[in-house]
Parts: sequence; C-alpha cells; structure tokens
Amino acid sequence: ERLVAGIRRYIEIVDENIDAVTLTYRESRTLDRAGRDRIKELEVSTSAPLRDVLEDGIAAGLLNDVDVDLMVFDLLLLAHGWALKHWHFGALYSLDEYIRLQIRFVLNTILPAERRDSYAHLVR
Amino acid sequence: ERLVAGIRRYIEIVDENIDAVTLTYRESRTLDRAGRDRIKELEVSTSAPLRDVLEDGIAAGLLNDVDVDLMVFDLLLLAHGWALKHWHFGALYSLDEYIRLQIRFVLNTILPAERRDSYAHLVR
Repeated sequence: ERLVAGIRRYIEIVDENIDAVTLTYRESRTLDRAGRDRIKELEVSTSAPLRDVLEDGIAAGLLNDVDVDLMVFDLLLLAHGWALKHWHFGALYSLDEYIRLQIRFVLNTILPAERRDSYAHLVR
Repeated sequence: ERLVAGIRRYIEIVDENIDAVTLTYRESRTLDRAGRDRIKELEVSTSAPLRDVLEDGIAAGLLNDVDVDLMVFDLLLLAHGWALKHWHFGALYSLDEYIRLQIRFVLNTILPAERRDSYAHLVR
C-alpha cells in the first residue's frame, strides 16, 4: 500500500544520504536563521507526501484516526534515526530489516484492529 | 504501569535538558572518538531501565514480543524528538500532550490486542 511504499522510500533516501543527514543535525548551529528556516521548510515539504497518504487513508476509513502532525514527524524521526543512530541500528539490522521493523511498529498503531489480518505479511 | 512511567520520565528529562540534547547532536563532531564513544555508552546506560521494563513485560506475557533493541532506541528517538523537533512539536503540543500522544503511539503497538481494553485510558 502507498503508506508502506512512502515510508520505505523515505528511509531509503536517508540511507542514500546518511552523511548529509547527520551533517545537517550537526552543523545547523553554523547556519544563520534563514538557513535553519530553509531546512525546516524542506522537512515540511519533503514530508508532505507522507502527510497526504495518512490524511487520505484516515479519510477513507482505512487507517485509525491518529494525530497526523505527530505521526508525520514521528516517521521522520524514525527514518532519520537510521542515520543518527547508525552506530546502534547499523550493527544490528540491514537496511531492509530496519525498514521492515519500523513499518511493523507503525502499522500496528495505525491500522484498525479489524484490518490487521489483511496486512499480516507486513505486521508480523 | 512501569513502562508508561519510564517513558514519561525519560521525555521529562529531555524537556529539562532540551538545550543540552540539541547541543549534543550538534557538537558531536567536535568531540574526539573517545568523547563520542562516551556519549554512546551514556545512551545505552540511561536507556537500560526502559530496556529492563520491556524485557520484564515481554517475559511476563504482558507485552507483545517486540524487538527490544529497536523499541528502546525508537523510544529514545521519540523522546529526543521533543528537543530536536521542538520548532514543530513545541508549537502544536504541550509537554504533557506530547508525552500522552507518544505513549499512545507506543502502547498501541506493544500491548497485546486483548489487553488494550484494560489500558483504554492510555490508548485513546
């Protein structure tokens, strides 16, 4: 489904840019206010597709009525976590395992109980 | 229950040290290898209580058999997120709301379906 594909792609992009992500967290101090505002804008705009999928899924009754503002940034944090905590996660999981486990974590909270059986291959 | 208290306390500590948390992410580059290793050790040791609660809960059959290594660091990321993404979360939620919403997010994935009714006040 679209949400799973979106999360997977977002984490893959973090993986492809793992040095840039950690660099951005480290070096934000050296940017001026305009530079920091620009990074914040980019985080909001690059997360827009995830937000759209969540809002569509909730509107269609396919997903639980979660707090979208929270969920989008939680997904961002978990994706950036692949870079920020690579010393921990990278030693334990492959990229594919990390994606699969985080998707399982998120789907368990976001899928209505009665729909989990249809997605058993993703939730287990 | 102990897990909820542990998560709440961990996020409260991040809130009390919000500048120190962002500083640590920003300035890790300026530390030498020993300094960075020390921070990693501290993250592992300060998260040990959360790990213990999770392992006890799983052993007692109170929690789903989740991946503890993943869950502990996901909880760390979501707690640090209160500092790292304060420009986003801080504008939307109070500290108490943030704690309540993140606990709801986590419990929904970690509590067995048949036990969620007993914790309805935390999961809704």
